Amino acid sequence: MISEPMFEAAGRLTDLICGTGPMNAVWSPRATVQRMLDVEAALARASAAHGVIPHAALAAIEAACHAEQIDGAALMSGSAAGGNLAIPLVKLLTANVRRADAEAAKYVHWGATSQDIIDTGLVLQLRETFALLEQDLKACCDALAMQARAHRATPMVGRTWLQQALPITLGLKFAQWLDALSRHRERLRSVRGRVLALQFGGAAGTLASLRDAAPAVARSLADELGLALPALPWHTQRDRIAEAAASFGMLTGTLGKIARDVSLQMQTEIGELAEPASAGKGGSSTMPHKRNPVGCAAVLTAAIRAPGLVATVFAGMVQEHERALGGWQAEWEALPDLARLTGGALAQIKELVAGIEVNTERLAANLDTTHGLILGEAVMLALGDAIGRLDAHHLIEQASKTAVMEGRSLLEVLSTHAAVTAHLSAGQLEHLLDPANYVGQAHAMVDAALASHQAFKS
Amino acid sequence: MISEPMFEAAGRLTDLICGTGPMNAVWSPRATVQRMLDVEAALARASAAHGVIPHAALAAIEAACHAEQIDGAALMSGSAAGGNLAIPLVKLLTANVRRADAEAAKYVHWGATSQDIIDTGLVLQLRETFALLEQDLKACCDALAMQARAHRATPMVGRTWLQQALPITLGLKFAQWLDALSRHRERLRSVRGRVLALQFGGAAGTLASLRDAAPAVARSLADELGLALPALPWHTQRDRIAEAAASFGMLTGTLGKIARDVSLQMQTEIGELAEPASAGKGGSSTMPHKRNPVGCAAVLTAAIRAPGLVATVFAGMVQEHERALGGWQAEWEALPDLARLTGGALAQIKELVAGIEVNTERLAANLDTTHGLILGEAVMLALGDAIGRLDAHHLIEQASKTAVMEGRSLLEVLSTHAAVTAHLSAGQLEHLLDPANYVGQAHAMVDAALASHQAFKS
Amino acid sequence: MISEPMFEAAGRLTDLICGTGPMNAVWSPRATVQRMLDVEAALARASAAHGVIPHAALAAIEAACHAEQIDGAALMSGSAAGGNLAIPLVKLLTANVRRADAEAAKYVHWGATSQDIIDTGLVLQLRETFALLEQDLKACCDALAMQARAHRATPMVGRTWLQQALPITLGLKFAQWLDALSRHRERLRSVRGRVLALQFGGAAGTLASLRDAAPAVARSLADELGLALPALPWHTQRDRIAEAAASFGMLTGTLGKIARDVSLQMQTEIGELAEPASAGKGGSSTMPHKRNPVGCAAVLTAAIRAPGLVATVFAGMVQEHERALGGWQAEWEALPDLARLTGGALAQIKELVAGIEVNTERLAANLDTTHGLILGEAVMLALGDAIGRLDAHHLIEQASKTAVMEGRSLLEVLSTHAAVTAHLSAGQLEHLLDPANYVGQAHAMVDAALASHQAFKS
Amino acid sequence: MISEPMFEAAGRLTDLICGTGPMNAVWSPRATVQRMLDVEAALARASAAHGVIPHAALAAIEAACHAEQIDGAALMSGSAAGGNLAIPLVKLLTANVRRADAEAAKYVHWGATSQDIIDTGLVLQLRETFALLEQDLKACCDALAMQARAHRATPMVGRTWLQQALPITLGLKFAQWLDALSRHRERLRSVRGRVLALQFGGAAGTLASLRDAAPAVARSLADELGLALPALPWHTQRDRIAEAAASFGMLTGTLGKIARDVSLQMQTEIGELAEPASAGKGGSSTMPHKRNPVGCAAVLTAAIRAPGLVATVFAGMVQEHERALGGWQAEWEALPDLARLTGGALAQIKELVAGIEVNTERLAANLDTTHGLILGEAVMLALGDAIGRLDAHHLIEQASKTAVMEGRSLLEVLSTHAAVTAHLSAGQLEHLLDPANYVGQAHAMVDAALASHQAFKS
Repeated sequence: MISEPMFEAAGRLTDLICGTGPMNAVWSPRATVQRMLDVEAALARASAAHGVIPHAALAAIEAACHAEQIDGAALMSGSAAGGNLAIPLVKLLTANVRRADAEAAKYVHWGATSQDIIDTGLVLQLRETFALLEQDLKACCDALAMQARAHRATPMVGRTWLQQALPITLGLKFAQWLDALSRHRERLRSVRGRVLALQFGGAAGTLASLRDAAPAVARSLADELGLALPALPWHTQRDRIAEAAASFGMLTGTLGKIARDVSLQMQTEIGELAEPASAGKGGSSTMPHKRNPVGCAAVLTAAIRAPGLVATVFAGMVQEHERALGGWQAEWEALPDLARLTGGALAQIKELVAGIEVNTERLAANLDTTHGLILGEAVMLALGDAIGRLDAHHLIEQASKTAVMEGRSLLEVLSTHAAVTAHLSAGQLEHLLDPANYVGQAHAMVDAALASHQAFKS
Repeated sequence: MISEPMFEAAGRLTDLICGTGPMNAVWSPRATVQRMLDVEAALARASAAHGVIPHAALAAIEAACHAEQIDGAALMSGSAAGGNLAIPLVKLLTANVRRADAEAAKYVHWGATSQDIIDTGLVLQLRETFALLEQDLKACCDALAMQARAHRATPMVGRTWLQQALPITLGLKFAQWLDALSRHRERLRSVRGRVLALQFGGAAGTLASLRDAAPAVARSLADELGLALPALPWHTQRDRIAEAAASFGMLTGTLGKIARDVSLQMQTEIGELAEPASAGKGGSSTMPHKRNPVGCAAVLTAAIRAPGLVATVFAGMVQEHERALGGWQAEWEALPDLARLTGGALAQIKELVAGIEVNTERLAANLDTTHGLILGEAVMLALGDAIGRLDAHHLIEQASKTAVMEGRSLLEVLSTHAAVTAHLSAGQLEHLLDPANYVGQAHAMVDAALASHQAFKS
Repeated sequence: MISEPMFEAAGRLTDLICGTGPMNAVWSPRATVQRMLDVEAALARASAAHGVIPHAALAAIEAACHAEQIDGAALMSGSAAGGNLAIPLVKLLTANVRRADAEAAKYVHWGATSQDIIDTGLVLQLRETFALLEQDLKACCDALAMQARAHRATPMVGRTWLQQALPITLGLKFAQWLDALSRHRERLRSVRGRVLALQFGGAAGTLASLRDAAPAVARSLADELGLALPALPWHTQRDRIAEAAASFGMLTGTLGKIARDVSLQMQTEIGELAEPASAGKGGSSTMPHKRNPVGCAAVLTAAIRAPGLVATVFAGMVQEHERALGGWQAEWEALPDLARLTGGALAQIKELVAGIEVNTERLAANLDTTHGLILGEAVMLALGDAIGRLDAHHLIEQASKTAVMEGRSLLEVLSTHAAVTAHLSAGQLEHLLDPANYVGQAHAMVDAALASHQAFKS
Repeated sequence: MISEPMFEAAGRLTDLICGTGPMNAVWSPRATVQRMLDVEAALARASAAHGVIPHAALAAIEAACHAEQIDGAALMSGSAAGGNLAIPLVKLLTANVRRADAEAAKYVHWGATSQDIIDTGLVLQLRETFALLEQDLKACCDALAMQARAHRATPMVGRTWLQQALPITLGLKFAQWLDALSRHRERLRSVRGRVLALQFGGAAGTLASLRDAAPAVARSLADELGLALPALPWHTQRDRIAEAAASFGMLTGTLGKIARDVSLQMQTEIGELAEPASAGKGGSSTMPHKRNPVGCAAVLTAAIRAPGLVATVFAGMVQEHERALGGWQAEWEALPDLARLTGGALAQIKELVAGIEVNTERLAANLDTTHGLILGEAVMLALGDAIGRLDAHHLIEQASKTAVMEGRSLLEVLSTHAAVTAHLSAGQLEHLLDPANYVGQAHAMVDAALASHQAFKS
């Protein structure tokens, strides 16, 4: 029953958003160390390839570049003194290599500085992050395309200022979300191209200690890791990192918008949508009417936290000279937290949009909350063709007030209004007051979003 | 009727960063109103073109779409009641049109919602902002390329943790800034492509009131304004705006990094660089040694403010349904402030990099602050070739300590060390201890940054 | 010379929140300049009182310390070059004094540094800000106390996760807001005591140029302005300013919570509360059902913007040595914006709580949305006394499910359940299912909040 | 060598700031769970005391309220589904109690809601946080008082805009830090008084399920935990939490200011101060001149991160109705992170100020960097007494320019200037140009800060 280590396991106990999903694995302590060791191993290979270190040293170094061989406690206590993870990691790695091959131990970390290892390890984690986000974004978009198609013509009330305004369709709402997420897919691709670059500059960014071999080693190191080789190292030029952070933060903002809409439509009094039911999630045994939007809450949490994390990374960009004093270090928790939150929020939305429950009765009932008032404009336009827009406007305005005061529907009021019946038949009036007939370009807009989604895929 | 001075409203007295420059003009109250009126005029033309409003109405509407005809005081007091600028602006515009042509007044703002006008006006301001930023970024990059070329081989001390580390070149520092700014040029182009899109959806985003003419009017309106026509309106999908904000914030972060470096190098005790002297700026009559980095301070101010403004725009993305309650409105001051700060900071850096004063004596003197200690690695590498790296490391370590304790230069200490003189001649030793000979790939890196800058231009 | 309109500078067109209210006046360009001139005049008096400057100089200096005599355009262009407002202001002031009395002009600004004038002027504006906030907070609290008393026993549905949960009373909701605002009143008093301190240190914070007269002049200057004389000047110790910013930001957060609740309760589908109707505010002529929460939107806007502004002031605290490079300057727009937003949001809430419209029919109707399910717990507790809590829980759980499935009320289902009727009479059951009878300590809590409000007043 | 669990141990590997110190222990996963269980145990005692639950149930419940009995893995997976930690914790606790005493298990968590447990547990952690901060702040202030006393009269150069300005004393600098930290001590006391309040309201904040026993149980629960009993529960009124966050963030800002100053004074070219040397911290074997400000970097990191975390907590204040959807949850990682960073930064500064190394030679040497120019004002004032201030100003201005142009000291130039020697003897001139004689009120200011520190203690 007692599971002592799990307490210490949790990162923070409240890492609810990502749960135990793949994004948590990308940014786990173990993965962080492993990606840094991947860089050390690749550096050894690249250096050996150009005779900078002896080929004989390679086997022992590569064999030691595995996270499970690193003493975590020593790593952490060394970090506090050294000011970063790489200093103690290189010491521990070197000691491990030395036990196998004393000569090889001399060539660990050859020519690199701590920041080269930490930053390149980070870029490798970012590569995995982009891949996961792109995969989940695709799944989200596919699900939304399906939902938009299915509800292309389902009328619902559009709301502005949290007030009922005019009819739209549920398909249009889904298409809106789809369209925004499609832009994020495009954006992430564009960002990824700039971000996935090797960091390799040595102590002051000149690669001086590698002497003439520097360009060749750098080239090979980039190739080993499958990263772009930038014109210059970027130790204190953090725009790449800031751009990754911004792209995550923006995506989380859009996800928050979706969660806001869903949670509002899940209100007991509105009941149009519901998160997919799943065992133990959001239900209440004594209050069966209650469907807590647990997934939405997680996404909204992420959306509240993301702006502060992005701001932190941006604030950290003002870095001193050739190595920063605080600005760089501020990224170390902010960026992983942001990536986890973004990945977690996206996973929640992916699940939500795939299984969202639509209550068409409530959608229809809510369209009738105002007993036709939200369709006054439709009648006004039709009437305006006959009696002029200004008079039509005035007539509808008066009829609407009458309807409210007398507690009657707009249809009832208008049906007994001579100026109306003179121009519009009962059938026409009913047609005009059917929300499904006043959704403007909603269908075409859904089609446009679907076409654009289709185009992205191919 | 004309209330000219209201438009000249100084913003805030402390709008120091932008001064009276062109970016301030882009975001002035007058320009904000004019861009909204530009949209109204274009809407009238587009609607008339498709017979939605009578051609006869066009002249009066277009004639009234000039900011100087708007009563600023009425505009502001109406804004508070209506909750946005467009509601009172349309009223004032309509009243002005009515005075000239009562019939035409009926067709003002036809089919549009307030947010269509406000957002599209904003996009027009963003277009001007991008143009100014791109122009100034080009000027910055050109100046930095010139400076990097000029100081390609000027040695200076590289600093990490605010401590002297290894030699670099001043050209490399300039190349680093150039390289980062070049990425911002590329980034802004990419962002601009997504941002410059028409907003046009009517009251609930369906363009319902334009009935069948909606698609044609939308197409013409986009063409009139030279904006992209998006698949869907984006009233509550703010990723475009967030992306613009992020691109400005990131740029400001890089500018802040440059200002940090320059201000540190301008310290009385360091004196390597100075902002270009200009009348009344930063000097002190009684303290002629004092060169206050006034430009850098302005840029650093912008860099401290930008993250909070970006975070605000991101936080505002979580918008309700088809029209937001606070999230949209939060952009109205945050985005213009951010654009002004970014434009102002960039203008400061443009001036700075074009006229930066380089004190080569101090650059050289500071390289000698440690009397050679920063070149220990260079000797160690050379010696390592002869006696093995480990022994060389130990020897240099001891010699460095001796030099510090005895207050002698590293050259003096090493010159009398048999293990050194056995392998390195006096000439070799002096060569190794010359900072200019230990700048690694600095020259090549400068060339790479210049080549990349050159490639961008063409 | 007089450039009146420059001072009337509208800030930004979108300064909707504060409108033309008194908080805007406190922070207007004119007021900012006047408060700085107030400090200059007081300094002249204090200096003359101790023979530091000749008494004869006093009249001319005092006569010139009026904002309307300052050339606004010259002030702003000088600010950009000098890096702050005080440098050109002192120049313009000196020139104005010189025209009246050349000898007196020598004694303007004697012994002070720019930051002394700017910071003390700011503190004077903060004093007015605290006064306005305290006055409006008192009005808010009084109005809420009245509302809480009036609706002490009005049942309404309590909502968690945006889902109906259990009954509360409307009075309890008002009492909650009251209680939070009362804490803000206490907090602002406590903060004000630390913030309202003189800034006076001269060029490097030592008052060296005033020689032995320094302590006496400082004492008199503080007395002249009615400010505390701190042990030390605080040029780069910004905790006082940060605390003011935080107190404003926190207050805005609470106001945002109130606005969130009201806007949610104003939803067309819920309709429990409405902002007070006022001409031209939030209404729609063609959609008489629509009551846009324009005031709430303004408050929510402020609540979205405040965190970024507070963060900016906090980020600016990391200041260099004896005068900052960016951190201080970052306050200049952030703090006034924050004060204006806070004052504006508070004014909106003051108006809202004084005139809030309560729809008791809708409050009652919404309590019945779930047909009694939200009262299952009340029955369960009563039944538990008889049959044990576990069995009662199981019974209610089943009955609730039955009610949902069969579309019947909980009362109907329970009335036909033998295990229930065996222990509870029809009257008892009805009593238990009346929301007014299951509001727990709501009445007592309202009383407690009222008592605490009463205590604060005295 | 392999220590698998440590990897999972680390929270985040980069929790460098707090290291393994006591603030980390306060906010560890285990402590978080234990504080929640402390609340459950106290609730059982309070409920039993008033006959709400049977006394017989108490022993089994209390015996189970120990974190080491909780299955961490089950806790975390349950959290994701339930949306908070308390839901699964209560389930696991209940199951554990049931194994010992099936009857007692019925009375676990009686009358409370999840948020009661989570918030009150948080308040208990905050109490420990305040205690640690106050203890470390006292130690900091004591050390700074000692340093200020020791260096009361040690002259050093005051710097504004990162430029040398006028002499101050090192004691004054320490006194400035002391004075700011003393205000934080006062502020934390004031904040603590408002923050340490019980959260106890049940499902909708009315304590309905406890019926008449509610007030007595609440009172006893508060007493059991040593917390204040507030007039009302505060589930969605988060000003208390925001105030705690703000107080931490402000303190971190002041600590950042200290770290900025120290790191600037540690620059290789300045070398006036150094962090206390400690094994393996900040040193470099091959570059013995290098003393990396590792502690300062950690503090600056915290100062960059704190504003974003405070902003997050503030943004979360806008909470819905009786239980929030995201705003509350956003606190769960932000507040602990902020507390850890603040505690860690304070521990760093405590160590730093206790052992700071002062290089008096460099302090003196840097005072002479400008060869007397920084003392021109002192001579001008003395000369002004004789020849009038305006003439004196002009004379010093010219002499300073001459000194700069001819590379001579100001003393040399003035010594040969007839207008000077006519009024000032060689001895007087030398006295005036001695920085120690132009530190204004520095000594008195140090005394004032010390007196105020002394007063706080008693």
